[in-house]
Amino acid sequence: MTSGPGGRCDPADLENRLRAVVGRPNVLTDRDVTVSYETDWTRRFSGHARCVVRPGTTEEVAEVLRACSAAGVPVVVQGGNTGLVGGGVPAGGEALLSTTRLRALGDVDPVAAQVTVGAGVTLAALQRHVRPHGLDLGVDLAARDSATVGGLVATNAGGEKVIRHGSMRAQVVGLQAVLADGTVLTRLTGLPKDNTGYDLVSLLAGSEGTLAVITAVRVRLVPVLAARTAALLALDGTATALAALAVLREQLPAIEGAELFLATGLDVVRRHTGLPAPLPGEHPAYLLVEVAGRTDPTGELLVALEEVSGLDGVRDVVLASDGPGRERLWRYREAHTEAVSAEGVPVKLDVAVPVGRLADVVAVLPDVVTAAAPGARTVVFGHLGEGNLHVNVLGVAGDPVAEHAVEEAVLRAVAAEGGSISAEHGVGRAKVEWLSLTRSDAEIAVMRAVKGALDPAGLLNPGVLLPR
Amino acid sequence: MTSGPGGRCDPADLENRLRAVVGRPNVLTDRDVTVSYETDWTRRFSGHARCVVRPGTTEEVAEVLRACSAAGVPVVVQGGNTGLVGGGVPAGGEALLSTTRLRALGDVDPVAAQVTVGAGVTLAALQRHVRPHGLDLGVDLAARDSATVGGLVATNAGGEKVIRHGSMRAQVVGLQAVLADGTVLTRLTGLPKDNTGYDLVSLLAGSEGTLAVITAVRVRLVPVLAARTAALLALDGTATALAALAVLREQLPAIEGAELFLATGLDVVRRHTGLPAPLPGEHPAYLLVEVAGRTDPTGELLVALEEVSGLDGVRDVVLASDGPGRERLWRYREAHTEAVSAEGVPVKLDVAVPVGRLADVVAVLPDVVTAAAPGARTVVFGHLGEGNLHVNVLGVAGDPVAEHAVEEAVLRAVAAEGGSISAEHGVGRAKVEWLSLTRSDAEIAVMRAVKGALDPAGLLNPGVLLPR
Repeated sequence: MTSGPGGRCDPADLENRLRAVVGRPNVLTDRDVTVSYETDWTRRFSGHARCVVRPGTTEEVAEVLRACSAAGVPVVVQGGNTGLVGGGVPAGGEALLSTTRLRALGDVDPVAAQVTVGAGVTLAALQRHVRPHGLDLGVDLAARDSATVGGLVATNAGGEKVIRHGSMRAQVVGLQAVLADGTVLTRLTGLPKDNTGYDLVSLLAGSEGTLAVITAVRVRLVPVLAARTAALLALDGTATALAALAVLREQLPAIEGAELFLATGLDVVRRHTGLPAPLPGEHPAYLLVEVAGRTDPTGELLVALEEVSGLDGVRDVVLASDGPGRERLWRYREAHTEAVSAEGVPVKLDVAVPVGRLADVVAVLPDVVTAAAPGARTVVFGHLGEGNLHVNVLGVAGDPVAEHAVEEAVLRAVAAEGGSISAEHGVGRAKVEWLSLTRSDAEIAVMRAVKGALDPAGLLNPGVLLPR
Repeated sequence: MTSGPGGRCDPADLENRLRAVVGRPNVLTDRDVTVSYETDWTRRFSGHARCVVRPGTTEEVAEVLRACSAAGVPVVVQGGNTGLVGGGVPAGGEALLSTTRLRALGDVDPVAAQVTVGAGVTLAALQRHVRPHGLDLGVDLAARDSATVGGLVATNAGGEKVIRHGSMRAQVVGLQAVLADGTVLTRLTGLPKDNTGYDLVSLLAGSEGTLAVITAVRVRLVPVLAARTAALLALDGTATALAALAVLREQLPAIEGAELFLATGLDVVRRHTGLPAPLPGEHPAYLLVEVAGRTDPTGELLVALEEVSGLDGVRDVVLASDGPGRERLWRYREAHTEAVSAEGVPVKLDVAVPVGRLADVVAVLPDVVTAAAPGARTVVFGHLGEGNLHVNVLGVAGDPVAEHAVEEAVLRAVAAEGGSISAEHGVGRAKVEWLSLTRSDAEIAVMRAVKGALDPAGLLNPGVLLPR
């Protein structure tokens, strides 16, 4: 895009038309203001947007998309900008459509246990809205204060409760979205059974803004399960963590979290946070589990832990049934992200492997990384129930060759084990060149055909998800 | 299609090519043999197939579709032929692709709790295959001995356990399918988290054979919950059934079935089966609930029923904790379909309404029907948890004008209440003219675009789901 005299944003007609739609304050072109939208928080992805436009209603979104379509200007869609694969950041020259003003909160329907909210509502705001009704969203994650519901759906976000409630797609019973040409799709009745054609809701969930702009979401809610107990197990390795989890799942249908972290990650967390060791001594692996119910689940957890403690390689256990105690245990796991970022810009990879291959993959990953980039440090943690590993590599950022070599090596190692190159973060721009590692040519061709059917001009999030 | 001298099947090259692919015994053109494929079991839908072809492998399905594509001959896909909306029956002239020879049973994976089976495996065969491993499919329905897994997925079948496990789409973690042009899509790894692009598995689930031919399915399995107790409640009406269910759901996370039937349906069932009354006296409505767990759930059910029995309008309760007792209670509900069919050819409509509108809709439906067709009898039963009603109308079959008037009246009444014209049976041919009652023009346009993307020549199940 060319720059006009007043700044880097092209002063052509589009911005004026957008101002007429959303109001002058909601079309941002001043670089000082747009810059916060143009870089993701991992600092790995950035690009200049032609302008940032912030519609406040679905109809405004439709008008914005009509205007961009007419001008032939591509659009990148951004929610809370908490993504980790560059899917909400411009490549350069797009209009950046921010959904953060779509903040409507519908009435909670206690009979259906559902609510409709705007796409720009943050996860934390949704939680505050529904919890007084004794209801909760089945998905939760650390970025809750910024991550938007629309973004959670567009990326099919996962998080820490997937083991019990499934990913975001499983929570969505309806949505409203706008196609690139401004057509509004509205499917918000939330009927639990409705077999009248293609499941467009599931299709848009996880499509990363490439098919339509989600403007509102109707989600199913689950009961708030206030009685909670957590336990942290110190273990001799990942294989023991898997063995322990198998026992716990069998015994505890109420299990809601099963998080793995390792000695290397705990070191980084303790250095950054100053936290004491969670258990005496040093241990190769830790499994954090949480059980939730209507009534105190501590008793059943204790029974299950007694069986687990008989397994070889289970070294120690600490239990926390009160809120502060649970938060203290969770802090070790949740602080991984910020602690790793405090040590440098990490290369972050989110992968899944079949559970039967998980221990071997965890064991070889550091070597896979150092073979690709000598001296790099690998911090692995993740959601054990789904074989979902977050692989953070420090010491290569800023060296594009080394970064690429690390990504290539890790993703190929995972794909070779029948895993997925993205478990819950999506493909975005970060992994688009490796899509063919886990999707066949036939699948990619079908995805392209679907993209062409819904967005024939290729205006929405070009370069995201599907190779150009 | 024109008829050749040897029969009604065109003797052109296609059949010879198909015989070369699947073997002579698996290309049926003799009318005596094909007739059983050409009519659905409700006897409402029938059409002449050009031939019936029964491929035995995914590669044969691909070859069959390539041959039909090359010849420009449309294909109708049929599983167990237990559908209720004519979606698997020819309109006339198609090649009928029967999936019933795709009967491979993969090894049960006890760690992942998954199994891959051929699309032609019946639900009963799948159950026999997995239950010795302590695992079960989360969907079950009365047609289990004929209904195929592929058909369950293609129609996103529901059934009696949706309240606990969701519909068939929620059970499918992977599938293999063949596009009209013979392209094979294979996505059978079954990773619980895999965010690498559009969810083609969910898109094909419920697409009623219009996008691809499903040849294999990988399903998640749930633990066999052998400890079961059922209860039948006699009630003064549907509103009380809903109030009772609200209490039971709140108290019993282990609830697995919640079936509604009414006095009119019970009369038909008893006349056909000779069964005695399930409870003394006559009552307007009955709610059949079943609770399942690892350990005997009778105690918790009794506690919940004690609270329920305090509700106004709850007249009587009978409990059955042993197998024969439960079967006896279920027989009243499951015999509805056969009993209604024994009294005549019913018009069968499967609809859903928001739970808050359910009691009113049930109350007015008989009047809605008789206003459209005086003298018609209405038998309503269904899955209460999802507001899913099966509306069976006797006394109009054979009179196309009356049949159409009844369908029109019921579907419009349901749509006016925010309901769906098909809860779990799909659209098929039966409801295609009413699709616009529950899907907007924009949604139908998007569905057509998706259909055009995957099946540009419109070869698969023409006339099913989408209006021609």
